[in-house]
Amino acid sequence: MTAVNLDTLDTPALLIDLDIVRRNLEGMQKSADKYGVALRPHIKTHKIPELAHLQMRLGATGVTVAKVSEAEVMAEAGIKDIFIANQVVSEQKLDRLAALSKKVNISVGLDSITAAEKLSAIFAASGLTIEYLIEINSGLNRCGVLPGRDAVELYQAINVLPSLRLKGIFTHAGQVYGAGSLAEVMEVSRHESKIMVETARALDQAGTFAEIVSVGSTPTMKVWQGYERVNEIRPGNYIFHDAIQISLGVATVEECALSIVATVISRPARERAVIDGGSKAFSSDRGAHGKEMAAGFGIVLGKKATLARLSEEHGIMILDPDEDIEIGDRVRIIPNHACAVVNLFDRAYGISNGEVVEEFYIAARGKSQ
Amino acid sequence: MTAVNLDTLDTPALLIDLDIVRRNLEGMQKSADKYGVALRPHIKTHKIPELAHLQMRLGATGVTVAKVSEAEVMAEAGIKDIFIANQVVSEQKLDRLAALSKKVNISVGLDSITAAEKLSAIFAASGLTIEYLIEINSGLNRCGVLPGRDAVELYQAINVLPSLRLKGIFTHAGQVYGAGSLAEVMEVSRHESKIMVETARALDQAGTFAEIVSVGSTPTMKVWQGYERVNEIRPGNYIFHDAIQISLGVATVEECALSIVATVISRPARERAVIDGGSKAFSSDRGAHGKEMAAGFGIVLGKKATLARLSEEHGIMILDPDEDIEIGDRVRIIPNHACAVVNLFDRAYGISNGEVVEEFYIAARGKSQ
Repeated sequence: MTAVNLDTLDTPALLIDLDIVRRNLEGMQKSADKYGVALRPHIKTHKIPELAHLQMRLGATGVTVAKVSEAEVMAEAGIKDIFIANQVVSEQKLDRLAALSKKVNISVGLDSITAAEKLSAIFAASGLTIEYLIEINSGLNRCGVLPGRDAVELYQAINVLPSLRLKGIFTHAGQVYGAGSLAEVMEVSRHESKIMVETARALDQAGTFAEIVSVGSTPTMKVWQGYERVNEIRPGNYIFHDAIQISLGVATVEECALSIVATVISRPARERAVIDGGSKAFSSDRGAHGKEMAAGFGIVLGKKATLARLSEEHGIMILDPDEDIEIGDRVRIIPNHACAVVNLFDRAYGISNGEVVEEFYIAARGKSQ
Repeated sequence: MTAVNLDTLDTPALLIDLDIVRRNLEGMQKSADKYGVALRPHIKTHKIPELAHLQMRLGATGVTVAKVSEAEVMAEAGIKDIFIANQVVSEQKLDRLAALSKKVNISVGLDSITAAEKLSAIFAASGLTIEYLIEINSGLNRCGVLPGRDAVELYQAINVLPSLRLKGIFTHAGQVYGAGSLAEVMEVSRHESKIMVETARALDQAGTFAEIVSVGSTPTMKVWQGYERVNEIRPGNYIFHDAIQISLGVATVEECALSIVATVISRPARERAVIDGGSKAFSSDRGAHGKEMAAGFGIVLGKKATLARLSEEHGIMILDPDEDIEIGDRVRIIPNHACAVVNLFDRAYGISNGEVVEEFYIAARGKSQ
């Protein structure tokens, strides 16, 4: 498209600074290359096929998704190597997964014999095979088996089932989003890799081989310095960063590519102004995985203002009483949690040097199945 | 559609119990009729034209929306009387508002002379007139002028502008969502009506007449017993209710029409099970307007379980260790905040007697502009 002025967009609008995106992507790819590991970014952050393709062109080996429906969008857009870093259990999803596996190279997580039996049954019935990675709980206490012996026992139970082939092990140390300091982020990052390597060795001893040993979250990967035997990283948020990453000390405002532009619709008091975006634009997230890391709902750029409260369509800013903000003014705000915000918009606008240069359709928005 | 079994739906899926919806709608309409006031429901809760039409058939005089884009969806679907209970300020929205005003009967909120000047300029340029309601701050401290003299002064300043006609005054006492007891809900409800009537009288004395005196939120309207001079109510949530309404004491589980069905994908420990819906299905809302009223993220029906934590695609339930929940089982959950949840889905399924009887497209989802 021809570059247009930002002010031509109605608000609230979702902006992606493409220059920052490119620096963020190149930075993480460089880090992956330096440590000799594959980068398989999680696309849940951007949900946009064009950006997945950009990640692939810069060196990513494939993408990570959380849902079969996200995998379908990416496959439809021509991405050929997809890992579903999640448990796929419902019959409807398993049927779609089998269909998808005929078109692209797809692998999936497993953390229970029950889920493995369901997966095996569907694939065996279709005469297909699927590669799986055992999900390891490295401290988030969400899905995943415990590292070491529990992982080996699950492998041994799964190994007798038809149509499944062990590809490796993976984890997501999402508890890092509750870290109180950069030192704590680094500690979680080391722990995440360490328990995975121990588990890989335990599998060696049990007579099998985890070809892929995969870790990753943006905070743990931003401070990562490689770890022998770990050979894949799966950060997602690093493409945009957000206020939460800043609060953890792993990103700066200048590295934040995603922002929302909103219009001031009311200034009922010197210390209060209201914008035309609320929780339907910013989400109610105060952090990732339910951790409350942020005081407000985003960083208001260039203003002495806090986005203190949200209704669905209103954002209430608390201001320095002398702050020069008038009704009709536009403000740009870096959200707390980029991934949650992208899911709320149908479209995003790529900007470069302050002008709108591209319009993206967020093709994987709302793909929860 | 032919009735189908709930289990044919993939998860997470959004369910609307149509029998409960009808009872909820009839109940509020009966209350409005009893007190002789107009019911103008806020459609932000359901975002579905078919349900707006059902509200109209049962006696609603028109609908309330928060955004021009929501008004466009409702107008397109044939709703002829729409109030935008918000400040409309951006040029793009004002242009669309003017276009819309040629097709349907539309009115809008105002709380500043700056916004009034923008509105007046656009309508005067098109040779059109628009009716406005002055927004009164009854304690939510969001938009709105203070009751009484401030409202009169704003009216007087606006009254010299062309193309604007005073229709009345409106408020939303959203602070009720922070009430600690039913007694407090009742107190906010009385206060909401009282200050509006005082403001209407102040306008009388200033030589004008507020034809519409409009109040409303679901909690304040569920306990309302009428108030002389108040002649319009604008609840929204009452069509569905949710865990927040239950926590306020103004609804029961049996009155909750909206639920999410999800599948258990992992049970890594006796006290923990994980479902395939997270903040992309339940939202991160703990209450309305940022109030944190709920302990978890919804009410798990029929199980000794709390939906304690959410990632984007995972819901972590904390269980009674003896609770019989297996991988593959389905659970139904009443969300904290129905309005925020509906905005996350493209489709909802109408159920009756436990079977799926209708599929709704959520036409006003994502309409934040």
